[in-house]
Amino acid sequence: MVKGVFEHEFELEDVKFMKRALVLAKRGIGYVNPNPPVGAVIVKDGAIVSEGYHERYGGFHAERNAILRALERGVDLSGTTMYVTLEPCDHYGKTPPCTDLIIEAGIRRVIVACRDPNPVSGDGISKLRNAGIHVAVGLLESEAKEVMKFFMKSVVQKLPYVTLKYASSLDGKIADRGGNSKWITNELRKIVHKLRKEHMAVLVGAGTVLKDNPQLNIRLVKSKKRAPIKVILDWEGKTLRKRAELNVYSPESKVIVFSRLADYPVEEHIRVINVREPIEILKTLWTLGVDSILVEGGAEVFSQFLPYADEIYAFYGLKVLGDGKGIFSGISNTIATPFEYCITKTVVAKNRSEFLVVMKRCSQG
Amino acid sequence: MVKGVFEHEFELEDVKFMKRALVLAKRGIGYVNPNPPVGAVIVKDGAIVSEGYHERYGGFHAERNAILRALERGVDLSGTTMYVTLEPCDHYGKTPPCTDLIIEAGIRRVIVACRDPNPVSGDGISKLRNAGIHVAVGLLESEAKEVMKFFMKSVVQKLPYVTLKYASSLDGKIADRGGNSKWITNELRKIVHKLRKEHMAVLVGAGTVLKDNPQLNIRLVKSKKRAPIKVILDWEGKTLRKRAELNVYSPESKVIVFSRLADYPVEEHIRVINVREPIEILKTLWTLGVDSILVEGGAEVFSQFLPYADEIYAFYGLKVLGDGKGIFSGISNTIATPFEYCITKTVVAKNRSEFLVVMKRCSQG
Repeated sequence: MVKGVFEHEFELEDVKFMKRALVLAKRGIGYVNPNPPVGAVIVKDGAIVSEGYHERYGGFHAERNAILRALERGVDLSGTTMYVTLEPCDHYGKTPPCTDLIIEAGIRRVIVACRDPNPVSGDGISKLRNAGIHVAVGLLESEAKEVMKFFMKSVVQKLPYVTLKYASSLDGKIADRGGNSKWITNELRKIVHKLRKEHMAVLVGAGTVLKDNPQLNIRLVKSKKRAPIKVILDWEGKTLRKRAELNVYSPESKVIVFSRLADYPVEEHIRVINVREPIEILKTLWTLGVDSILVEGGAEVFSQFLPYADEIYAFYGLKVLGDGKGIFSGISNTIATPFEYCITKTVVAKNRSEFLVVMKRCSQG
Repeated sequence: MVKGVFEHEFELEDVKFMKRALVLAKRGIGYVNPNPPVGAVIVKDGAIVSEGYHERYGGFHAERNAILRALERGVDLSGTTMYVTLEPCDHYGKTPPCTDLIIEAGIRRVIVACRDPNPVSGDGISKLRNAGIHVAVGLLESEAKEVMKFFMKSVVQKLPYVTLKYASSLDGKIADRGGNSKWITNELRKIVHKLRKEHMAVLVGAGTVLKDNPQLNIRLVKSKKRAPIKVILDWEGKTLRKRAELNVYSPESKVIVFSRLADYPVEEHIRVINVREPIEILKTLWTLGVDSILVEGGAEVFSQFLPYADEIYAFYGLKVLGDGKGIFSGISNTIATPFEYCITKTVVAKNRSEFLVVMKRCSQG
């Protein structure tokens, strides 16, 4: 028996079905923001009879998809068990409450991985229990929180989840003396594109935009979206003036520019906001519904956003550049300065000349 | 059947016994330099009847230890098979030829991992074959070469094996702005002490000696030797003048100082040599019998010896120092500059706040 974090105990079979629900949930990552990616599985007599997940923002929730898919095929759901990675909602949002549909379908038991921290969602668990449904909470809760990490942070802290990503030489340089950074890491660049798919927005400084003219879209992995929202820190408006020549301003996605030129005339997909401080930028983005940001550089931007990073993707290429641009600029710490991150993952490229170290704030486990 | 690299095919059972011989060989690492660490196993009717390895410089070879241990216990070795990680010697060195003893003992079959590249050792394989012994060569050859990597390089290239070791922050700094480097990595320091045990000498610059007053001996791992030979690059003789206060000059091991003050009066365990260029220093050390050097810094020394490094142990601590001392000094490469190393190993510390990347010259496989 597996002890749930909160209040219940579960059988090994329950673990198996919840793992399946988590696999389904992950399919929604990058397409449902700022909603959480959620998966649901319905089980009858020990076998899965229907599945569903939250597929895109504004679309049906996981529970609704699983139930409707079963009913379409004429499956009787009375007496079944539902495994769902997040507490079912009990409110009218873009879709009606999932709780009503679960009750109506005759589902007898609901296993929930994680309570919904969002007060807007209502108390789905009580609603179900009051309807006579047996509800157990806390199975694979930490795994579910990891899948929904953007949602969990943004709802609780009212700030987007911040991932900082750099690609450095062994000696901590993100560009050589000539400013060239293509490519310090190459084989592992796919992972960067996966991060762009998962995050709702990417953020870069004007210097990087002007020097590298990056596209910042998703090319190296399969994706239903072409690009995340692009956020540019351009206080002086240098990129705004040259935007016709800059890839990042392509209309394939929204562009948010933080600049003192708030009244600068721009195309409809571009928005200029007069905010400068990193924490204010994060708050503003959250207000605009952004649940997650991938900070892609350069050195000044890394230094400004390091204090807010929840996670760091540190790519290293086997090169020694010596002179060149450091990862961070304007930081001066001593050995004793705390740096509260823990390694959660390492990856070595197949060509054995690049590696990735993923770090997370230790307090987040 | 396992195909030998050179000329023979082997049974799986042969692999098992040769692996055991390699385990024994490794026990000699750090104690036999500049000899190779070698292991030997004698097998009769499918079972090991004796084992031996080269235990210390000047001591008996692996084959001799294995045979004598068997004879002491009255074991008849006629008709047995010997597995040995290096071609048996056929010359009178500090000990008589192993070939004679093998023939005398009546051993019928000898499996050799690796030919001896040292012409001084004679043609042991032919000698054994001429005596009617069946000899097969090449089983687990690359594993054996790895165990004997110091020997293989120093005999073939007439230069010591060079391992470069640094401990850096994530952003490529080996000390903070105040010059403090204790400790950028801590939990993984045991591995550094293991490297000191394995290598015949450690090499540091005068700046590091004066700033950190390091001991450069073996404390954090069990070792039969207290310290490797200490090599100090001190052209101006600054450490020589202050040597009474400097730990590195302790008489626990020999000290070799490369300095223009070749006639400086020093104690008996110290030797001062008037040589300055890195390649000349390596050649001089080789002439003195040094088969392996661990280069421990600082930045100038890392830069000077990087072109000669066979292996790099790159320790990283989860810290961002910003300002501070870079790993290398006086290097200015572009992204296109080749850097011919491949990752052979990565280690993450248990506390998840340090990691190690081991790299080897790609040509060495």
